[in-house]
Amino acid sequence: MGEFDLIARYFQRPAHPLAPEVALGIGDDCALLHPAPGMQLAISTDMLVAGRHFFEDVDPQALGHKALAVNLSDLAACGARPLAFTLALSLPQADDTWLHGFSQGLFALADAHHCSLMGGDTTRGPLNICITVFGEVPTPTDRTQALLRSGAQVDDDIYVSCTLGDARLALDALLTQRGQASYAFAPHLPAAVLASARERLERPTPRLALGLALRGLATSAMDLSDGLAGDLPHILQASGLGASVNIDVALELIASKHHPAWPEGRFDQVLSQDDLMRCVLSGGDDYELLFTAPPGLRDDVAQAAAQSHTPVTRIGRIEAQKGLRWVNQRGQAVAVDAASFDHFRPA
Amino acid sequence: MGEFDLIARYFQRPAHPLAPEVALGIGDDCALLHPAPGMQLAISTDMLVAGRHFFEDVDPQALGHKALAVNLSDLAACGARPLAFTLALSLPQADDTWLHGFSQGLFALADAHHCSLMGGDTTRGPLNICITVFGEVPTPTDRTQALLRSGAQVDDDIYVSCTLGDARLALDALLTQRGQASYAFAPHLPAAVLASARERLERPTPRLALGLALRGLATSAMDLSDGLAGDLPHILQASGLGASVNIDVALELIASKHHPAWPEGRFDQVLSQDDLMRCVLSGGDDYELLFTAPPGLRDDVAQAAAQSHTPVTRIGRIEAQKGLRWVNQRGQAVAVDAASFDHFRPA
Repeated sequence: MGEFDLIARYFQRPAHPLAPEVALGIGDDCALLHPAPGMQLAISTDMLVAGRHFFEDVDPQALGHKALAVNLSDLAACGARPLAFTLALSLPQADDTWLHGFSQGLFALADAHHCSLMGGDTTRGPLNICITVFGEVPTPTDRTQALLRSGAQVDDDIYVSCTLGDARLALDALLTQRGQASYAFAPHLPAAVLASARERLERPTPRLALGLALRGLATSAMDLSDGLAGDLPHILQASGLGASVNIDVALELIASKHHPAWPEGRFDQVLSQDDLMRCVLSGGDDYELLFTAPPGLRDDVAQAAAQSHTPVTRIGRIEAQKGLRWVNQRGQAVAVDAASFDHFRPA
Repeated sequence: MGEFDLIARYFQRPAHPLAPEVALGIGDDCALLHPAPGMQLAISTDMLVAGRHFFEDVDPQALGHKALAVNLSDLAACGARPLAFTLALSLPQADDTWLHGFSQGLFALADAHHCSLMGGDTTRGPLNICITVFGEVPTPTDRTQALLRSGAQVDDDIYVSCTLGDARLALDALLTQRGQASYAFAPHLPAAVLASARERLERPTPRLALGLALRGLATSAMDLSDGLAGDLPHILQASGLGASVNIDVALELIASKHHPAWPEGRFDQVLSQDDLMRCVLSGGDDYELLFTAPPGLRDDVAQAAAQSHTPVTRIGRIEAQKGLRWVNQRGQAVAVDAASFDHFRPA
């Protein structure tokens, strides 16, 4: 199968209605994009590498979903509405079954968010997926309307959406099963818990509705891809401030703990405190929103969460004193040694 | 070196003046881009894979140049003015010398065209460079102002810019030197000829000034990345037409033939007709513009070429009869079996 056949068969969809902002899609040297009046473009790019971001033998449909999801998550973090994306794909071979599954997973998520594939590139090489995504945010009038990392204010509440740590839990368990790691908890994980957690690892949900609902409410936002302990400092640094986070509240946010497949109290016997902290605080791949908002807007934030069907939890507070402090329910300081997952951290 | 250190050291340039269209650059979840009034965005993405698009040990400065050049060439083909780009980079290791050279080559070309790096991604993995580039073209009023592949008209002249085939000549010679191919001409190539041809392979020049000058003149355009014989059919197919091309004129366009290092007549002894046709007609990596314009605009095209300091050569004519026909100087049909370089063609 030639490069052009491959594109035509799996990625070109002439009948698919493009967003009106897409003036020209696949097939020319460039695609053309025209933001609506009063809008500017939010742009993000993510590269996924086999063996690093996913198992080479992962379900291609899940991979198609995830490759776009992690990009849409960046749009969500800016409060942007998705318009279109480009796909560059390096493949070891042109495998029909794989391409069918991958394109199915990709387009199912794209269609759900009215996000058009507008161009791309395919080549032969080690499996690598690079997506660049385009969304729209209102053009700023007095201040920018996009949600940025730099806008947090002293006394703002700190929130995260949904749940944290389940993707890392699944990753650690799968690595242990494959003999690539050795986590003591893994053999004792009920199959139903692993299956749920694996869904979070392989099919993350970009929180686009919440991002849109938070326009004008959140003072800062980002998506959690490297873990709470590694990502929150980006907001603090960009905003020139510090924070206290209630670690007891944060550690409860792992959905796997509350799964009905566990016998009462068994979770705490199987997962050590270190396991729990690694998953929730330094586990990556959550793709939840981390954001700040003034305490006076708690009702509005609750309404935004309800309206977008995306629960949020208040986990801490922005403070003038720089640095990130972890405290327990009783307000006592807790020492946490959780470095963010860093792609170039010496192994 | 961590991922964030790497970005900060080599790719983040806070003092660099961003194009006014770039509302927000590196450092947040998304970059923000705002086309000027009356403009829309032209977008293209290209992925370069080690061992496929370049030799793993190529000069990193040349590679930085080429990775951006091939993308800018797509903008040139649409008559777009460059604004900004994103860079996703997968690296086997964080090597200071390599990163220094790569970023130098990249930014030298970017700065020459006032094109800002506005975001990206870095990860560890097999060497892979994916750039997505953004340019501006006038928003269409009655018809689109971007140069597309689909606008060729019967009787239009067909032009190419500058020279063709030298990049492929260098590639074939280098592959022969490395024992990865065996082209009989390679050992007889004067060093000065190879050096010049290698420049064309490793540091292609995006024809941006010509693309801009052709706005409103060219009826169709594309950039030559897969060779004339493989690329011209894209224009013909998109325009629903055919063409005759003068093969004798085309084959003269290889600069290596006219290099002063050759003794008189020696080029034709060293390169067979097949070598010549392979380089000029099916060699890739030319990154010259292929375009059509009405015969009534020959003076204007000549003026656009002069104004952009980019010579152009008229090589053929668009015809109603579909298909691509090669003719010699005497108007006789010449059979050419030159398939386009196809990344997934069975080896």
